Amino acid sequence: MIIETMTGPMGREVMNAKATENASVCGWFDGGRHVYPVRVYYEDTDAAGIVYHANYLRFGERARTEMMRCLGAEHRRMMQSDGLAFAVRSANTEFHHPARLDDPLMVETSVEEVGGASMRLAQTVMSIDPEKGTRVALVQISIRLACIDAALQPARLPKPVRAALQELIKDH
Amino acid sequence: MIIETMTGPMGREVMNAKATENASVCGWFDGGRHVYPVRVYYEDTDAAGIVYHANYLRFGERARTEMMRCLGAEHRRMMQSDGLAFAVRSANTEFHHPARLDDPLMVETSVEEVGGASMRLAQTVMSIDPEKGTRVALVQISIRLACIDAALQPARLPKPVRAALQELIKDH
Amino acid sequence: MIIETMTGPMGREVMNAKATENASVCGWFDGGRHVYPVRVYYEDTDAAGIVYHANYLRFGERARTEMMRCLGAEHRRMMQSDGLAFAVRSANTEFHHPARLDDPLMVETSVEEVGGASMRLAQTVMSIDPEKGTRVALVQISIRLACIDAALQPARLPKPVRAALQELIKDH
Amino acid sequence: MIIETMTGPMGREVMNAKATENASVCGWFDGGRHVYPVRVYYEDTDAAGIVYHANYLRFGERARTEMMRCLGAEHRRMMQSDGLAFAVRSANTEFHHPARLDDPLMVETSVEEVGGASMRLAQTVMSIDPEKGTRVALVQISIRLACIDAALQPARLPKPVRAALQELIKDH
Repeated sequence: MIIETMTGPMGREVMNAKATENASVCGWFDGGRHVYPVRVYYEDTDAAGIVYHANYLRFGERARTEMMRCLGAEHRRMMQSDGLAFAVRSANTEFHHPARLDDPLMVETSVEEVGGASMRLAQTVMSIDPEKGTRVALVQISIRLACIDAALQPARLPKPVRAALQELIKDH
Repeated sequence: MIIETMTGPMGREVMNAKATENASVCGWFDGGRHVYPVRVYYEDTDAAGIVYHANYLRFGERARTEMMRCLGAEHRRMMQSDGLAFAVRSANTEFHHPARLDDPLMVETSVEEVGGASMRLAQTVMSIDPEKGTRVALVQISIRLACIDAALQPARLPKPVRAALQELIKDH
Repeated sequence: MIIETMTGPMGREVMNAKATENASVCGWFDGGRHVYPVRVYYEDTDAAGIVYHANYLRFGERARTEMMRCLGAEHRRMMQSDGLAFAVRSANTEFHHPARLDDPLMVETSVEEVGGASMRLAQTVMSIDPEKGTRVALVQISIRLACIDAALQPARLPKPVRAALQELIKDH
Repeated sequence: MIIETMTGPMGREVMNAKATENASVCGWFDGGRHVYPVRVYYEDTDAAGIVYHANYLRFGERARTEMMRCLGAEHRRMMQSDGLAFAVRSANTEFHHPARLDDPLMVETSVEEVGGASMRLAQTVMSIDPEKGTRVALVQISIRLACIDAALQPARLPKPVRAALQELIKDH
């Protein structure tokens, strides 16, 4: 009986997830943009009935983490093998429309600029109208990240990471 | 080039996710237990380098939400159509081992007891040893939830929800 | 014995707090700027050993809430009596230096602009060097808030609130 | 004009806070119990209009941190000088009544048991009826903490900390 409740759009994905036992979401690339799904839970909302503003930055960070993992730059591995991490230098955020409990959202991330020791990303948190299939941009984040070493000093991005990020810019 | 980085265990799942455009994770059932994957992000950790203890309760709530959604009892729909919600009455949590940044975790949820207006669930947050394939129980949560109405008073569980929960107990 | 551990700089404040049984911090005004103290706890930090970037926005919101309470515009009262709330429209944040576990911080808030239905605030999260007594600006937030009604539509700021905010601008 | 809005119960406390420039709240002792004030902000609430259940554990941790600071066992200092930290081993939490936006709360902490390398605390999050002056216990937390070293192994509590905790038990 339970199995039946899982047919429909999610069915196959769920089955694959089970098959691989490696089911955390890492999103996918669409052209040069990374797309990452997020679901809104109670923990994300506030007493106004909408997602608490600072939590969109958490959604953005999850999406960036998965994008970097796809590019071979997993946070923990970078820290352990190269002693490197990313620090947020600035985050400019525009809040256009609110998201609500249970909403399925998408975070689109595109690389805007890559420097020797930093990068700038544009991230859009979007809702999807389940009937019309249209997307609405709820929140836009422009974020600048610096690559830093263990002493919190600026450090050069590892070459393969830099190359992968530049490849994404071309694919815009 | 990017596509190549996505082959391996996650490849097919990601493709299906993209195909359906409905990619938020809802987990799956294994016998009578619901299984839900969680990835550890910076937001979940603290200065001790491990997941902050209260955040395991957030993981548990995400898993419960998805289990209930699979059973047709989506939070927002229950609130809007029946004026009902779940309130946490008690949560007993044992912390055995810590989880760390980037760890892929699983939350296993099993229904222990279903009453007229309440239920008790057992939830285990587990890590998976990627080499040996063994699972380790990190945190165990025993949680009691009450069904409440808009006036925050105890209310009977909708019959189909109650039946679905009881079905899960039998499948243990 | 315990009492003795409480002498020193905090002693008198603590005693008054006890006396009044109303001890939550609401900060104070220094010229036209509101100053609000924050302590960094484990919950605020992440595995990099520093305050998680999105949490500075939470510190900013606590400070704004207390500033508005001082001005007679308590969130819940505004919601209940006038059906009004504040929505964050944009937040531009510069992260200069990180804060760490146990750090005592100050959030300075100054009103930059007041419109009919919106306002812009500048907030600085600062650390205090306990030896030299100097202040260091860690994070700067420029935030735009809209006054909205229950239907989430723009609404005029209540006159006394607007007047109090304009008074603060003059005192810069 | 602004100054006038600050008279009333908070007036003197605020002035002292300003005077000392060391205004973060550390609570106070009442007999053998530590009392710590907390204000509910938007960040603490969820779409049900009440404090999100896991956040009471954050309130509890703030209160414990301040209690330990009063006893001379500041987290960062313990970590740096002795390589010691506290790990939460278990947390049993009963949720009796919800707290809401803007509520002023108190967290009462009493030491129940002190072992060589661990301790058990009872914490009660309370609201205060501003008219009747009565206190209502909203949430009760029974928490067990282990003292651990840098390798996350159990370690003996520093003698002065242990003595101070035992003193508190006597004062119950």
